[in-house]
Amino acid sequence: MSISNAFIPELRRSHLFSCLEDDAVNKMIATAELIRRPLGDMLFHAGDKAEKFYIVHTGTVKLFLLASDGGEKIIEIIQAGRSFAEAVMFMEQNRYPVNCQLLEASEILAFENETYVSILRSSPEASFSLLAEISRRLHGRLVEIDNLCLHNATYRLVNYLLSQIATDAEGGPGIHLAIQKSDIAARLSIQRETFSRILARLKNSNLLKVSGSNIQVIDIEGLKALLDE
Amino acid sequence: MSISNAFIPELRRSHLFSCLEDDAVNKMIATAELIRRPLGDMLFHAGDKAEKFYIVHTGTVKLFLLASDGGEKIIEIIQAGRSFAEAVMFMEQNRYPVNCQLLEASEILAFENETYVSILRSSPEASFSLLAEISRRLHGRLVEIDNLCLHNATYRLVNYLLSQIATDAEGGPGIHLAIQKSDIAARLSIQRETFSRILARLKNSNLLKVSGSNIQVIDIEGLKALLDE
Repeated sequence: MSISNAFIPELRRSHLFSCLEDDAVNKMIATAELIRRPLGDMLFHAGDKAEKFYIVHTGTVKLFLLASDGGEKIIEIIQAGRSFAEAVMFMEQNRYPVNCQLLEASEILAFENETYVSILRSSPEASFSLLAEISRRLHGRLVEIDNLCLHNATYRLVNYLLSQIATDAEGGPGIHLAIQKSDIAARLSIQRETFSRILARLKNSNLLKVSGSNIQVIDIEGLKALLDE
Repeated sequence: MSISNAFIPELRRSHLFSCLEDDAVNKMIATAELIRRPLGDMLFHAGDKAEKFYIVHTGTVKLFLLASDGGEKIIEIIQAGRSFAEAVMFMEQNRYPVNCQLLEASEILAFENETYVSILRSSPEASFSLLAEISRRLHGRLVEIDNLCLHNATYRLVNYLLSQIATDAEGGPGIHLAIQKSDIAARLSIQRETFSRILARLKNSNLLKVSGSNIQVIDIEGLKALLDE
């Protein structure tokens, strides 16, 4: 079924539409379609001609490849609000490189590549606006990944330190751990630079002191609070 | 100082150059510059005219804003190999929106926006190739974020389950935990959907069984092994 202007706010949240002029968005809506499919349906197969890109309106789809042994390699799980298969419209080879199957009954918005590309071709401003938007988002995602890695590694390190305190015979605050920092980092699969950054943060927060290869815990409750962050 | 063709392999790893033809890369190199600066130096201030974009060759820089109370809000820390300030060249307002300062003595490659933009304007293929590359990278980063969130949440949940087993009076495998799943999820700051996905994975791996609000641990060693992943 064709889609209405009621979808405009939803489309504007996607980087593919946030950067278009109103009349370009209307042109896209005129050629768009809302596809309703049951769980398990294939939306497209790898190698199919790529004529559309998509935004998941409700539900979930997966992108996957078939290995030579017939096994599935899942490339991406895409949930409501996310676009997919848009990169291929900018490529010379216009065939989907992956398979797409519905993981639950879903409603998917489908847009014609040809219309979108013609909008960009006729307006360098639209292209540049899209490039600016994706560049910003790419930077934002890299920051998010850095934060997640740091958070994850902090959780592991603090968790490990607390477990060592619990088994220390002397107990109480100011416990002395005679463990090589490099050994702790390796044990917890934390990169050396990340490990140093976390230790520096814990020192600056007065949660522990580090002298040489020794770590002295100053504030156990403060460390425990980090696990709940 | 000007830069040489020796930088080509390094440049090709950036999405900004991986999609350009050889002669376009050479054109960029001809106008590029290697900037060496000491720790603490400002590379640009927010509001400065944006005439260049950058790739960190060695060292680290930070992008930051000044709050009204004079405090710094760090937007991003950028390490060797990463580009920055490129989004602004695609925007109408060509002023840097942030400040950039060196966190250590660094070598930074600087490229002229004007040259890069003129390459894209004269070749829709170059624009589309860049759009394809950034779209792919953006999707890749989203997958990475999903994986990191799932990994982090799995670590927390498994860690919590193991801590509960250790304090259970009956001990041994097959321990019965009479805890509401929703309570565990809330306690560990894990989103409901993520929590369900993790439990499903742990069940499928025969590490535990779930019946109603009860979780029965089947394979303690298997769970412990997940903490080392």
